[in-house]
Amino acid sequence: MKSRENDGVKASGAGMNRRQFAKAALGGIGAVAAVPAMLGEAIAKAEADERKSVEFRRNLVTTVDNPILVDETVHRRFSSANIAFNAYSRDLGESHWAVYGRNFVKNLQQGKGGTDIVVGSFDDARAVNALEAAMQTGNRLTGNHGEGNENRGPLAWDNNITSADLASFPRTELPPEDFTRQVKVAARLGGANLVGVCKLNRRWVYESTQRNVYSPDEPQTQRIVFRDVERPTETPEELVIPESVQYAVVMAVEMPRTVIQSSPGPAAGIGDALGYSRMGWASVAVAEYIRCMGYIAIPCKNDTALSVPLAIEAGLGEAGRMGALITPEFGPCVRLCKVFTNMPLVPDKPIRFGVEEFCNHCKKCARECPSKCITEGEQTWEPRNECNNGGVKKWYNDYKKCLGFWDENGMSCTNCVAVCPFTKGDMWAHHFTEWSIKNIHASHPVWLNLDDAFGYGERRHDLDVFKRDFAPYGMDPDKMER
Amino acid sequence: MKSRENDGVKASGAGMNRRQFAKAALGGIGAVAAVPAMLGEAIAKAEADERKSVEFRRNLVTTVDNPILVDETVHRRFSSANIAFNAYSRDLGESHWAVYGRNFVKNLQQGKGGTDIVVGSFDDARAVNALEAAMQTGNRLTGNHGEGNENRGPLAWDNNITSADLASFPRTELPPEDFTRQVKVAARLGGANLVGVCKLNRRWVYESTQRNVYSPDEPQTQRIVFRDVERPTETPEELVIPESVQYAVVMAVEMPRTVIQSSPGPAAGIGDALGYSRMGWASVAVAEYIRCMGYIAIPCKNDTALSVPLAIEAGLGEAGRMGALITPEFGPCVRLCKVFTNMPLVPDKPIRFGVEEFCNHCKKCARECPSKCITEGEQTWEPRNECNNGGVKKWYNDYKKCLGFWDENGMSCTNCVAVCPFTKGDMWAHHFTEWSIKNIHASHPVWLNLDDAFGYGERRHDLDVFKRDFAPYGMDPDKMER
Repeated sequence: MKSRENDGVKASGAGMNRRQFAKAALGGIGAVAAVPAMLGEAIAKAEADERKSVEFRRNLVTTVDNPILVDETVHRRFSSANIAFNAYSRDLGESHWAVYGRNFVKNLQQGKGGTDIVVGSFDDARAVNALEAAMQTGNRLTGNHGEGNENRGPLAWDNNITSADLASFPRTELPPEDFTRQVKVAARLGGANLVGVCKLNRRWVYESTQRNVYSPDEPQTQRIVFRDVERPTETPEELVIPESVQYAVVMAVEMPRTVIQSSPGPAAGIGDALGYSRMGWASVAVAEYIRCMGYIAIPCKNDTALSVPLAIEAGLGEAGRMGALITPEFGPCVRLCKVFTNMPLVPDKPIRFGVEEFCNHCKKCARECPSKCITEGEQTWEPRNECNNGGVKKWYNDYKKCLGFWDENGMSCTNCVAVCPFTKGDMWAHHFTEWSIKNIHASHPVWLNLDDAFGYGERRHDLDVFKRDFAPYGMDPDKMER
Repeated sequence: MKSRENDGVKASGAGMNRRQFAKAALGGIGAVAAVPAMLGEAIAKAEADERKSVEFRRNLVTTVDNPILVDETVHRRFSSANIAFNAYSRDLGESHWAVYGRNFVKNLQQGKGGTDIVVGSFDDARAVNALEAAMQTGNRLTGNHGEGNENRGPLAWDNNITSADLASFPRTELPPEDFTRQVKVAARLGGANLVGVCKLNRRWVYESTQRNVYSPDEPQTQRIVFRDVERPTETPEELVIPESVQYAVVMAVEMPRTVIQSSPGPAAGIGDALGYSRMGWASVAVAEYIRCMGYIAIPCKNDTALSVPLAIEAGLGEAGRMGALITPEFGPCVRLCKVFTNMPLVPDKPIRFGVEEFCNHCKKCARECPSKCITEGEQTWEPRNECNNGGVKKWYNDYKKCLGFWDENGMSCTNCVAVCPFTKGDMWAHHFTEWSIKNIHASHPVWLNLDDAFGYGERRHDLDVFKRDFAPYGMDPDKMER
C-alpha cells in the first residue's frame, strides 16, 4: 500500500513526469531489439489520438468460441449462500456489515475514511460519504445490490412497472436479429455503456438464493430451478425459471475512473454506488421493453447468477486476475447486470484481447491488494474456499480476506480495479496494449513500469471529487459512441 | 404539419443539401450589406469546430439581475389544480388520459403512433412504444412526473433513502461556496447535464397541490405554506415548508435530440420518458447528499413549484416563445427538476444569450404546433386561461389546446422542442447564434431559412431509433465537460 498513500507520491518513477519516464524507458530498454523505436511510435500515436475506444474494440479484439474452461466432472452451480458477504458473516457470528459500520463511524468521527486514510475534518469525511449515500439512491430504489432480492420489488420476475397494456398483446414475432438490435438500443438508452447477448448457460445461474442476506444465522435458501412452465413462479422452496428462458442480455456500466482511483478511501465508494444505481435502472428498463413485446424478462443485479462468466460469454470482456471482468473500453472499472429472457436473440461472440497473457505478468492488483486476497500464482482449477465456484480454470482469490479488510478499514476497497492498467484513459489501454500484444509479449514488464511512471499508480485524494467538472454520471465522453 | 410528415421531406429548401443551401443563401441575401462574407465565415467556423458547448456558455452568455418581469399587483401563486393536465380533465368530464389511451390503442393496432403517423406494422409501433415504456421505469420508481406526489415515496420531504446515520449528526457548517461546489458535483454525478442555484423565490412555489391528479372531479387540494417550523410537515390541509428553506438547486437533463425530432410520432416519447427518469434520480440523489450533511431537502420533479422560472433564476437559460426553458447547450430539449433546501448556497446569475430577440422573429414553434396553441404574437401580461400564471411578461399559450391534440392523436407531442433552432448540434446554436446576435439582428429571417435548409425541420422516422448507436442515455458526448 506504500504506493497508494494519501500524499500522492507516485508508485515508482517518482519525480519524473510521463514524458521524462518514457524517454528514459526508451533509452534503457535497448536490450530488447527494435523496441525503442516502436514504443516511441506507440507513444506518439497515443498522444496524438485520444478517441479510439470504439475503434479499438472493432479493430483489435478477436473472438473465441469457448472462453471459459470448465471441468464438468467437478463444477456445480454456486449457491448465493456462499457469496463472501454471506459466508463471512457466518464465520464472524454477526453481519460483517455490523463490524464495518462500527469502524466506519469511528473513522468518520476522526475525519478518516479508513484506518489510514485521512480525508480531513469530520465535515470533509462526512461530505465524501454524503456523496456516496446520494449515489446509492438509485441502487436502493431498484432492489439494492440484488443479493437476496430475486423476484422482489423492481426486480420482480413477472411484473411490468409502467405498461401492462403493451405486455398484454400476444407476443410479437420478429427475426432474432431485429429483437437483438432493439434490445441493445433499450440497453443503451437505459444507460448501459456496453451490452452483449449470450445463450443463458445455466451453469452460471445460482443453485439457490439466500434470503436472509449477510446474516450469521443458518441460510434461508430457495432453490433456483428451470421447469417447463409458462411463466416464472415462486414457492416457499423454489424460484422457477421457465425452460423457455434461453438468453441473457448482459450490460456493463462504467464507474468513474477518477473516483475509483481514490481506493481504498471513501471517494471510491461514490463510483461503486453510482455503478449499482445505473445498473439497477438499466436492468429494469431492458426488462420492461422485453415484457412490452410479450416476452418473459428476469432483471438481475448481483442476484440470480454469476455476472462475470455471463459477461464473458456475451462478449463484453475477459476475466482478469482479480476475478473481475476486464473490458477493452473500461478495464475492470465497470459494474455488471443482466436480464434473462425467452425473447429469441442473436448471441455475441466472446472476445480476447490479451488479458490473460497480460495478467500472467502484471500482478499489480495482487501487489496492491491490502488484504493479499488476490493470488500471485497461476490459473488453477482449485477453489480457495467455499466462496469460490470451483471446477473452472481461473485465478482463485480469497474474498473473505477482501471483506476482512473492508470491515477492519470500515470502508470498502477497489484497489484492484483502481490500479489495473486496463482501468485507463484511451492512451493506455489502446495504443500500448495494441502495440505490445501485436509485437512483443516479453515487453510486458516495460509496460508495467511505464504504467507506474505515468502516475496511474497514485491514489487520488478523496476531496478531489469536489474539484472536478464531471460529465453526467461521471462518464468519460471520449469513450462513447457518436 | 406539412413539413413534418412521415416521408421525411424537408420543411423548405427541399432538394438542396446544407452546403448547397448555404451557398444559395449567400448569393441571395446580398441586399443585407456585409452579410454574405460574415455568414460564410460563420459557416466555415461552424464546420471546422464542433465542440463548443462549454466555451459558448462561458464566452457569449451575459448575466442579468431581474430576468423575469412581474406585475406584483396582479401576480398570484399558481395552484397545481390549474395545470392543464388537471384543468383540461375537468373540462372534459373525464381524465384526459382516458381519451388519450383510447386513441393510443386504436392507432397502435393499425401500426400508427398518432392519427397521421404511420410507424409500420403493429409490431413496429409496439416496439417503439415498448422502448418508451422501458424509459419510463426510472420515472415510475421516483414518483412519476411528481404531479400530486409532493412528500410521497422517493419524493418525501424529510426522509433519507440510504443513510439516516449520516443525516443524524449535527449539521455541518461550511462556507456557502463549499456547499455550492459540493451540491453541484452531487447533481452532475446524479446525472444532471446542467445545474444552477437560486434563492427560492416563493412566487413560483405552487399555492396548493391537487392530489387527485388528472381527475374530472372537484380538486382535492392541500395548500403549500411556509412557516417557522424546524422540519417539513404535512397536515390534511397543508404541506408546510420551513421558513429556513431559502435556496433551490435547479437541474436540467438532456433529452436525446434525435428521438425528440420524431415528434409528434411515438419515438419522441422515448426522449421525454428518459428525461423524467433521469431527473427523478437526479433530484433524489441531490436531496440525499443535502440531508446527509444535516440540512433539509425537498426533492421535486414537476410538483411543488413551477420549474421554468426557477431555472431562469438559477441561470440555466431563458424562457422561449413556447413557454419552455431555452438553454444555451440544449435549447429547450431538456427536462427540469429541483431541490429546495436550507443549506446555505451561492446563487448563480440569470443569463441572457439572445433568446427573447430570436423568438420575436422566429415563431417556428408556433408555425409547427399542430394545435396552434402557441402564440404568434408579442409578449404580454395577460393569461389566455386559468392554466397560465398571469402577471408575468411572457408569451402566453393555450395548453389545453396542446393537450387536446395529444388526446386526439393518442400520442404526446414535442414539436415545439423538436423544431426549435436552439435544439441543435453545436454548429447551429453556437456559431450562428453568436455571429448573428453580435452582428445583425435583422438577419434573423436568413438564419431561420438556413435552419430549415439544414434539414433540422424534417421529422425523423420513429423506427430510426433502432438504427442508431446511442451513447448511454442517448446523450451527446460533444456537449459534456471533459
